[in-house]
Amino acid sequence: MADTPPGSANPPAAGTNAAFERAAEWLAAPGALVDLTLPEARIVTSYMTPRLIAADTTFIREGDATDEGFMALILDGEVVVESITVSRTQPVTISVLGPGSLVGEVGLVDKEPRSASCTTSADTLCAILTRQGLAALIANEPSAGAKLMLSIAARLAERLRDNARKLRLYAKLAKAMQQELEYSTRT
Amino acid sequence: MADTPPGSANPPAAGTNAAFERAAEWLAAPGALVDLTLPEARIVTSYMTPRLIAADTTFIREGDATDEGFMALILDGEVVVESITVSRTQPVTISVLGPGSLVGEVGLVDKEPRSASCTTSADTLCAILTRQGLAALIANEPSAGAKLMLSIAARLAERLRDNARKLRLYAKLAKAMQQELEYSTRT
Repeated sequence: MADTPPGSANPPAAGTNAAFERAAEWLAAPGALVDLTLPEARIVTSYMTPRLIAADTTFIREGDATDEGFMALILDGEVVVESITVSRTQPVTISVLGPGSLVGEVGLVDKEPRSASCTTSADTLCAILTRQGLAALIANEPSAGAKLMLSIAARLAERLRDNARKLRLYAKLAKAMQQELEYSTRT
Repeated sequence: MADTPPGSANPPAAGTNAAFERAAEWLAAPGALVDLTLPEARIVTSYMTPRLIAADTTFIREGDATDEGFMALILDGEVVVESITVSRTQPVTISVLGPGSLVGEVGLVDKEPRSASCTTSADTLCAILTRQGLAALIANEPSAGAKLMLSIAARLAERLRDNARKLRLYAKLAKAMQQELEYSTRT
């Protein structure tokens, strides 16, 4: 797996214009990223950079505190999200994401180290929004910026609810195992 | 514990003006809610409603899907955040929050049922921002709105990282208990 510096702009390849129009449509899609109109979504994508990432490239690395912060909207291809921290020996796959999915939005909005690694499992075309790009969007087009942030916040909220559900399951599991342990040590 | 309908505006009591100025200062405080200047924070608070909530009032109820969505900035007093879903019999305290803390921001940005209950443990003064208020803020003052959303997203990201840490701990705990169980059933 090769490392690529984040935010390094490469010239748009053939077909990226059409892909970017798809990006705007995804951003504007109801339920996906709510509340953005298609013209506003086009404003947002004009602050994004296309980036073609070769298969098997880790473009976000868990624990990385040096990158300047960016998120990627997947336009084509596939990204595997993994974390090494659970087992400490081999990475655990958290999710596999395809076109229309957003990765790295947590690192975009805060300045903490990356919480998971993202690796392409196929050649992948992304639309990248850096923290600098987001700041410029908010300064120049605050209305589209506000709606994008509302959408990102809604996605974060959804993930938070998801995690809360998992935590509850774990809490129940731990309780059940505790009872089983108590039972098996008593017998 | 009494229920109070969310978003019901009551007339500002004496001292709320000073409290609201404190609200603006909290919103503008670096590290707390980033990037908002004090004038912008004052714009945000002008879209909020003061609300004095008596002690022992549950003003956000877990599972509630009927409320229109609001968040509360605690100005004075104390709020206990609880969830019943873990044990199914009695509520588990998730956190105890004081002045400067934000509650209900998840329910503000999405339309899902409330994930926890919030109950005042003392008379509590809050600044309430409803979903309607947020929409008006974004429409009329998009720049302040965008920065507020960026701040809320950063708080959600922080909570997401917190939960991810807890999930990892649970995963390790479950693994350790599993090993202990295997060991104790073998002997």
